[in-house]
Amino acid sequence: MRPNNRANNAPRAIKITRHYTKHAEGSVLVEFGETKVICTASVDETVPRFLKGQGQGWVTAEYGMLPRSTHSRMQREAAKGKQGGRTMEIQRLIARSLRAMIDLEALGERSITLDCDVIQADGGTRTASITGACVALIDAVNGLVANGTLKASPIKGLVSAISVGIVNGEAVCDLEYVEDSNAETDMNVVMMEDGRMIEVQGTAEGEPFSHQELLSLLDLAKQGCEQIFVAQREALNQ
Amino acid sequence: MRPNNRANNAPRAIKITRHYTKHAEGSVLVEFGETKVICTASVDETVPRFLKGQGQGWVTAEYGMLPRSTHSRMQREAAKGKQGGRTMEIQRLIARSLRAMIDLEALGERSITLDCDVIQADGGTRTASITGACVALIDAVNGLVANGTLKASPIKGLVSAISVGIVNGEAVCDLEYVEDSNAETDMNVVMMEDGRMIEVQGTAEGEPFSHQELLSLLDLAKQGCEQIFVAQREALNQ
Amino acid sequence: MRPNNRANNAPRAIKITRHYTKHAEGSVLVEFGETKVICTASVDETVPRFLKGQGQGWVTAEYGMLPRSTHSRMQREAAKGKQGGRTMEIQRLIARSLRAMIDLEALGERSITLDCDVIQADGGTRTASITGACVALIDAVNGLVANGTLKASPIKGLVSAISVGIVNGEAVCDLEYVEDSNAETDMNVVMMEDGRMIEVQGTAEGEPFSHQELLSLLDLAKQGCEQIFVAQREALNQ
Amino acid sequence: MRPNNRANNAPRAIKITRHYTKHAEGSVLVEFGETKVICTASVDETVPRFLKGQGQGWVTAEYGMLPRSTHSRMQREAAKGKQGGRTMEIQRLIARSLRAMIDLEALGERSITLDCDVIQADGGTRTASITGACVALIDAVNGLVANGTLKASPIKGLVSAISVGIVNGEAVCDLEYVEDSNAETDMNVVMMEDGRMIEVQGTAEGEPFSHQELLSLLDLAKQGCEQIFVAQREALNQ
Amino acid sequence: MRPNNRANNAPRAIKITRHYTKHAEGSVLVEFGETKVICTASVDETVPRFLKGQGQGWVTAEYGMLPRSTHSRMQREAAKGKQGGRTMEIQRLIARSLRAMIDLEALGERSITLDCDVIQADGGTRTASITGACVALIDAVNGLVANGTLKASPIKGLVSAISVGIVNGEAVCDLEYVEDSNAETDMNVVMMEDGRMIEVQGTAEGEPFSHQELLSLLDLAKQGCEQIFVAQREALNQ
Amino acid sequence: MRPNNRANNAPRAIKITRHYTKHAEGSVLVEFGETKVICTASVDETVPRFLKGQGQGWVTAEYGMLPRSTHSRMQREAAKGKQGGRTMEIQRLIARSLRAMIDLEALGERSITLDCDVIQADGGTRTASITGACVALIDAVNGLVANGTLKASPIKGLVSAISVGIVNGEAVCDLEYVEDSNAETDMNVVMMEDGRMIEVQGTAEGEPFSHQELLSLLDLAKQGCEQIFVAQREALNQ
Repeated sequence: MRPNNRANNAPRAIKITRHYTKHAEGSVLVEFGETKVICTASVDETVPRFLKGQGQGWVTAEYGMLPRSTHSRMQREAAKGKQGGRTMEIQRLIARSLRAMIDLEALGERSITLDCDVIQADGGTRTASITGACVALIDAVNGLVANGTLKASPIKGLVSAISVGIVNGEAVCDLEYVEDSNAETDMNVVMMEDGRMIEVQGTAEGEPFSHQELLSLLDLAKQGCEQIFVAQREALNQ
Repeated sequence: MRPNNRANNAPRAIKITRHYTKHAEGSVLVEFGETKVICTASVDETVPRFLKGQGQGWVTAEYGMLPRSTHSRMQREAAKGKQGGRTMEIQRLIARSLRAMIDLEALGERSITLDCDVIQADGGTRTASITGACVALIDAVNGLVANGTLKASPIKGLVSAISVGIVNGEAVCDLEYVEDSNAETDMNVVMMEDGRMIEVQGTAEGEPFSHQELLSLLDLAKQGCEQIFVAQREALNQ
Repeated sequence: MRPNNRANNAPRAIKITRHYTKHAEGSVLVEFGETKVICTASVDETVPRFLKGQGQGWVTAEYGMLPRSTHSRMQREAAKGKQGGRTMEIQRLIARSLRAMIDLEALGERSITLDCDVIQADGGTRTASITGACVALIDAVNGLVANGTLKASPIKGLVSAISVGIVNGEAVCDLEYVEDSNAETDMNVVMMEDGRMIEVQGTAEGEPFSHQELLSLLDLAKQGCEQIFVAQREALNQ
Repeated sequence: MRPNNRANNAPRAIKITRHYTKHAEGSVLVEFGETKVICTASVDETVPRFLKGQGQGWVTAEYGMLPRSTHSRMQREAAKGKQGGRTMEIQRLIARSLRAMIDLEALGERSITLDCDVIQADGGTRTASITGACVALIDAVNGLVANGTLKASPIKGLVSAISVGIVNGEAVCDLEYVEDSNAETDMNVVMMEDGRMIEVQGTAEGEPFSHQELLSLLDLAKQGCEQIFVAQREALNQ
Repeated sequence: MRPNNRANNAPRAIKITRHYTKHAEGSVLVEFGETKVICTASVDETVPRFLKGQGQGWVTAEYGMLPRSTHSRMQREAAKGKQGGRTMEIQRLIARSLRAMIDLEALGERSITLDCDVIQADGGTRTASITGACVALIDAVNGLVANGTLKASPIKGLVSAISVGIVNGEAVCDLEYVEDSNAETDMNVVMMEDGRMIEVQGTAEGEPFSHQELLSLLDLAKQGCEQIFVAQREALNQ
Repeated sequence: MRPNNRANNAPRAIKITRHYTKHAEGSVLVEFGETKVICTASVDETVPRFLKGQGQGWVTAEYGMLPRSTHSRMQREAAKGKQGGRTMEIQRLIARSLRAMIDLEALGERSITLDCDVIQADGGTRTASITGACVALIDAVNGLVANGTLKASPIKGLVSAISVGIVNGEAVCDLEYVEDSNAETDMNVVMMEDGRMIEVQGTAEGEPFSHQELLSLLDLAKQGCEQIFVAQREALNQ
């Protein structure tokens, strides 16, 4: 049995709160069950040096965890003086995923930074981050349209992400921490609304996984992402 | 006139939410108007090396701001690879202030770390941090008493903090950002419940301040801290 | 047409040279066409702190590129003072992949570090690194058996890795640099000899990829890995 | 009794040696008893980026201690790779204090850096630094007037600083190390010649301090600063 | 007896392989016996800031060792986050030596970076690096002449380097690791073809060395460098 | 003509002031003309990890320059976050030189750190540092003998150092800054009292140097060191 009797294909309750903080052009609190992440989108009217004069914009991301977002306190990365490998890996994933949903040329020579800061962690922080950052990015871009900076929205569609995995021999969707730490295989899938994929990252933590298991996980991920798209659309319609 | 027609001696609305996140031994969201800080207290059953075998405990603090807690995005300190001077100064102030409210010998050979992370900044983040961290520390210590680790609470009393300053020639209490950025003098006061002071840090940003102005500011600080103690006590009684 | 008229399912010439340098317990030069990586395995009779006294060993990896292994000179990471996000991501991938092929309890309380240093890059450096490090790890472990440190080999089987991707609308195997930089989708697959997978990392660089495309890529990856296993076995039999 | 039978309101012997080293535009050795600090002022014909084109100058400060300026050797910050929190706090204090004595617009678009390097520490290094840096800054500015770069001096007046504190229940002035390390309360005051204050930083190291104690300390600080102004004026008249 | 019955004045077998990797403008594998270093020369059409507009070029060098180029694994400098003192010292020596063989004004406003990466160490890595980098630099410069960027070669002559030392009381040439680690005196000499010297760095590891011993070492160095020039010329003629 | 009509073989006025600061076990201000360096020796009753239990002591050194010890202000290394290559090279040279004058086994399992901090630079800071550190080291060791920690002094003799070079075609001794910056060849020699050498570091800044020039420089260095030994002995006899 999963915690709270969740069905294997059921994501946790997804809650998306827009306009969560007041300064950012887009600001979202996203909750996947007990996992809570603040996602902000900040517009900057410059581009990184490697894009100067190329006639296109840029979207990037940074990720962090509050030191006590976790069961035991993690050392603060600012105090350690460097970001760890896991942080780097996650923020690169978020950025790639978000760039897939926007036409960078139509954005023009400006940058949008997505900051995803985990205030409470219970598994799936990177997939929650992508899901919330998608909504924050849309709010920021809509602001540019509303104030006349952009004539039309460069957004191509929604992006959502979910983790799936094999726990106790069964394929399950949206693992929470107690499941994640016992998973044999852990996979994160980032999807567009039409079901096509932007990222698939599957890792065998214990036993290697078979082709058949991979197919089951992809199927669960598709079901999960569909429910997340619903939550994103509802939030955006409010 | 102050923003929102506030009286010169009136702090903003103070809101203290306990048990804000679930993993930390103490977890508080403190709000001074639009300034919002998450303060967590984490208990660790060790002490820093310089205190090993001294028969006493330790209280320390770390401070951070989410990159977009501010009007324009600040660079993430973890990405820069070091904490700035302002961050260092504030976390040292928080730690000294909190150590004043606890009997470190009675705490025993264990450490408590207060993490103060600003999710929205509108002036007074360091005083809000001290105020919220005080409540988080009490929750953490009460947990140690409740589970039998400590026989009695080592807490000596509440600590609160407020900023006062001279804006447009008038002494005012609990400056918000638009006031703070125009203040001629800015002072932070940390107080015990009996009115005695732990820290007084006054800085002339523009003109130097006179002895008489200092006295006016101290008077306002006392009035402000008294209202904060009320808010802390109410939160602790819920 | 692919460069050199390669068939879509054909990896480049794979060359594995054992005992390439003389000091390491395992030392391999692996070549995937023009991509050349030195992989060494170093045995250390200690384990990291988090594993002390757990009765098991550890396998870790580090990855680097010589500054002029690439078309234009890259800044030396030692001179920059930190390893970039890509480096971190790759060395974490190599380490996870290699740990899957060894019984860490049977290894005993000792560590093996795989250093993968790219001396010439032409696409696929991470998959070449995993492939070469697998052979270096086996040589190092066989040395421990030969000198009586271990009674039996803790190796569970070979691990190989290949990149596959969609270039000009076609699924191809083992992309070289000119293909890689134009790929719409790029996927790295790490496999055991029985065809089960350890890692699948697919990324849409341009258009998202469909379920059908993913299946085609996995099929190509399986064919490619089978040829790499042949090259590994031949090298180990010499 | 205080060391050397000093009266509670008596600062140590203050000695200010101008033109101490030959390269800097201003160079002072300041001695507060056994505390010795080299303060240099360096003129640079540029301003930091955030002030470009604003038509004003800048004054900044850096602080350091020679590793063996203290009783036991401190690790060299250059070797550790970062400046500690105390260093940052002190150099920010010095810079704010010095900026209060100069009209930055009249200085024009140029910067002056005050370097305060402690060669022997015996308490009060930050107040000695401010006191000495004030004289070095005046020498540097007078040089700009003398060589015609500036038409008139932008200096508004002298700045001096002193530490006061409560030791063994008594308020005393200009604490030396053995007093400082036993002080219940420690306060640093930075003053203009007219008695108005630039900085007041009071910290309860042991017991909190009362309003009455604060007043006594401020009174001692005023007396102390008056004596320091005499020493500064004498040095400048030589 | 020296290892392999080498005569005291005999360098090890010197082997210089040009065009070792394919991307760099100059790429050499240099071997002094079992010491193997990859030396690449990279041309960059800019100069460092301090040379902008001076009408001259620049030659610089960086040095690194693969972690397992040595008997026991060295920590990777990129992972440590800084280059050690020995690395800095060596790369500064290589750069100074190579600048002596080229007319920087005739090179024009462009830079050439020599990267010397040790893949196997057995003593003499810095002298092998200089020797190999000399050939890589010539290849890079000849490329600039061949493609018309330069009208004539700015190369003034060859540079070679050798280590000499006193081992068991005898002066010997081109020390390998077992000799180097037991040497009483260790000296590195960098020479031009006409016998004049660019660098002489002699260090007493055990006993100080006499004037007479210094003369013997210089004599051996001259003989050794002559043989290295032969190897360089042969390599360049192929 | 040299500045101040100095003869080619004449060092500048050497002044050695012992007991310059009060906390260190040895503390010397050394002056070579206008070059001034504070050298302190700090005794620590531990040894670095690599020497634990080896029955011997250690001598190490650190070198720094005050930011305005030079003509134009240098960036503070503590603020930059790392020590430059020149600093590293010099402190390694100082340490090797000082270790040559002491019997490390007779010193016992303790360390002595020499800190050489340049307060005014005018050429020859490294040779002044070695010369002053020698005296500070002797004072520190004599303290250990005086307090009974050591039964006999482990000092083997004095060490001194001087720079020599070729300026305007002539060999000169103890170059000051204006000479140093125009030297064709620059050489530093570290010597024992019996004339044997510990270090010889000669560098051609412009033209390579001949064997004959090297001999002239060594001769000048010997004459110069003899005068420095006189100054050291005089200082030690006071």
